[in-house]
Amino acid sequence: MRDVAIIGVGLQPWGELWEKSFRDLFVEAALNALDETKVDKLDNMYIGCMSGGLFVGQEHIGSIMADYLGQRYLSAMRVESACASGGCALRAGFIEVASGISDIVLVGGVEKMTDVSGDGATYALATAADQEYEVYHGATFPGLYALMARNYMDRYGMTRDQLSAIPVKAHDNGHNNPNAQYRMKLSVEQVNNSVMIAEPLRILDCSPITDGAAAMILCPLDRVKELSDKAPIKIIGSAMATDSIALHDRNDLTTLDAVKVASEKALKMAGKGINDIDVTEVHDCFSIAEIIVSESMGFFAPGKGAEAAANGETRVDGKHPINTSGGLKSKGHPVGATGIAQGIEIVQQLRGEAHNQVKDAKVGVTQNMGGSGGSSVVHVMEVA
Amino acid sequence: MRDVAIIGVGLQPWGELWEKSFRDLFVEAALNALDETKVDKLDNMYIGCMSGGLFVGQEHIGSIMADYLGQRYLSAMRVESACASGGCALRAGFIEVASGISDIVLVGGVEKMTDVSGDGATYALATAADQEYEVYHGATFPGLYALMARNYMDRYGMTRDQLSAIPVKAHDNGHNNPNAQYRMKLSVEQVNNSVMIAEPLRILDCSPITDGAAAMILCPLDRVKELSDKAPIKIIGSAMATDSIALHDRNDLTTLDAVKVASEKALKMAGKGINDIDVTEVHDCFSIAEIIVSESMGFFAPGKGAEAAANGETRVDGKHPINTSGGLKSKGHPVGATGIAQGIEIVQQLRGEAHNQVKDAKVGVTQNMGGSGGSSVVHVMEVA
Repeated sequence: MRDVAIIGVGLQPWGELWEKSFRDLFVEAALNALDETKVDKLDNMYIGCMSGGLFVGQEHIGSIMADYLGQRYLSAMRVESACASGGCALRAGFIEVASGISDIVLVGGVEKMTDVSGDGATYALATAADQEYEVYHGATFPGLYALMARNYMDRYGMTRDQLSAIPVKAHDNGHNNPNAQYRMKLSVEQVNNSVMIAEPLRILDCSPITDGAAAMILCPLDRVKELSDKAPIKIIGSAMATDSIALHDRNDLTTLDAVKVASEKALKMAGKGINDIDVTEVHDCFSIAEIIVSESMGFFAPGKGAEAAANGETRVDGKHPINTSGGLKSKGHPVGATGIAQGIEIVQQLRGEAHNQVKDAKVGVTQNMGGSGGSSVVHVMEVA
Repeated sequence: MRDVAIIGVGLQPWGELWEKSFRDLFVEAALNALDETKVDKLDNMYIGCMSGGLFVGQEHIGSIMADYLGQRYLSAMRVESACASGGCALRAGFIEVASGISDIVLVGGVEKMTDVSGDGATYALATAADQEYEVYHGATFPGLYALMARNYMDRYGMTRDQLSAIPVKAHDNGHNNPNAQYRMKLSVEQVNNSVMIAEPLRILDCSPITDGAAAMILCPLDRVKELSDKAPIKIIGSAMATDSIALHDRNDLTTLDAVKVASEKALKMAGKGINDIDVTEVHDCFSIAEIIVSESMGFFAPGKGAEAAANGETRVDGKHPINTSGGLKSKGHPVGATGIAQGIEIVQQLRGEAHNQVKDAKVGVTQNMGGSGGSSVVHVMEVA
């Protein structure tokens, strides 16, 4: 396998973007990524998108995006693992370049979620859960994560204030991120008093519905000098794992096994331990997710993640900086794009270009999650 | 890149399968493929599915299928390029094994299309076209292929009888295929007099709506002896290409550029010319598609494909046997599964196990297509 580097990254400001179509979003992010490189012509493209069919009535997403990006005839496919689709695109592109079959691969993600009316977005997102055993019986995602939060509280005595530390930190970081959907700062009191969605989760525990896209350009490490002037970032670990898609069938509600397995595999491939990681983006679709993920990855012992977050250990200047971008909560969560945007934050941290720069960041990790933890994709990156 | 072999294949009888769920279909085909091998545990899985969201309200398809296959924690993602999604799964799995990152990979496809009511299937399939420039204005797939057929007739003088030779041959072959959805034989008169759908295409020019799945097991060529007793089939060429997704934006309505580009690339990778190919499965979603594809791949000169088919040149004992399985028309077209099932027919031909065996078949090709030709995936296979 060849060494693979990221030589260009691109986003656009995320939000509720009525004036931009599904294809506009992707093309804008892809052109921004290409602009960081000297690449004119791609060899291949992988696009993460969770549900083009339900959100915008468009499948065949690889072709439409290749066409609108001016790269007709390109090989281009869409990959999907619910909200981990972006991570899948990065993994597929990494394998493609590592294999030697292609040199220059764009990996991207896109979702336009605000064009559906009524409960259309809730229905579309629920297709990441088990349709027959969960959704049919009325479960939605806030409800599934609420079960995890309640179980965690019962077992470990997490307080409401500890849980609120997650969105407060997210918005403190997102406040400095010009592409974030919600840049206002939050107080613990605001989170504690926000509208209840699924007990104990309140509206400010939940990531928003977002229109957005993200893209990265990959190439073999030995071609970086010729293709970009930016400091190349090397992908040194990549792994994906699944778990039972239905929550009731898991071994334990306060551990995410897919996260644990993918994280261990990716770190092993990278030859790193968890304490070698300087900066991490995790999938905080709900406040409780960030806490359980941080434990399942091994940053904190079981039951210690909430306390660690409340003590500031996951802040930019903490021992384990997590979600310096603002996370899904502040930055937004266009589901197919999230995994790529996580990678972009890590690339910018490792280049020393981040909005909330972690000092001397040399190794970073992304953890992207599908559904209530039915899948997880983890990547480890390093300054080349 | 390592050499990659197919060591097991599995289907189930396709049709309108009310008694089987989405996950049942996939698991049945996957277990049939595993039964041809000594494999217990997979390293990875790629599943082609066009629109789980619109057809059955289920995305996150990799995870759900890994779970129900008893392979929890497996890396598993879904890939999509409309009706070429199965071909994408084969390509992604091929690249994964070739890269060296995984050894044993299941590639599959699945679609459950008959659970939607009213015009739900037509709407779901139309998401393979350009939603904003085609579908919104009323175009459906029979309409788009009818434009190609009319243009081909005007330019080359194809007769109705010549066009009807395609479904007649498909059903003659499918008659012997126990997994085919429609096994009855057809006459030219029956096709000519069947109900008009989109002039000049009649109902017997159109592939059906189908529930079905298909799966294959891939491994490195140097591990075949240990993992299967079946004659291994080597994948020697793999390519994908896109084109404008919207028909009005193509260079020419009677050539499919995505097919041409993918076919040339795959043959080049395989080191074969088109006349080295002994047996071929092409994407005959409509009668006209088989004719135009056979020309775009180079089997026949432009304008000569219809005549060649009517003269029997694409029959099992003809010069260029095409769709010996019965093709999409007779076998059925569960869109995500089609590309894998095409590969299974070629594997069985090369093993000498086909229902309509081509004598001394040593090299075979599959051509899978998305939408009206917005994408195409081509694979070349050879007896190992």
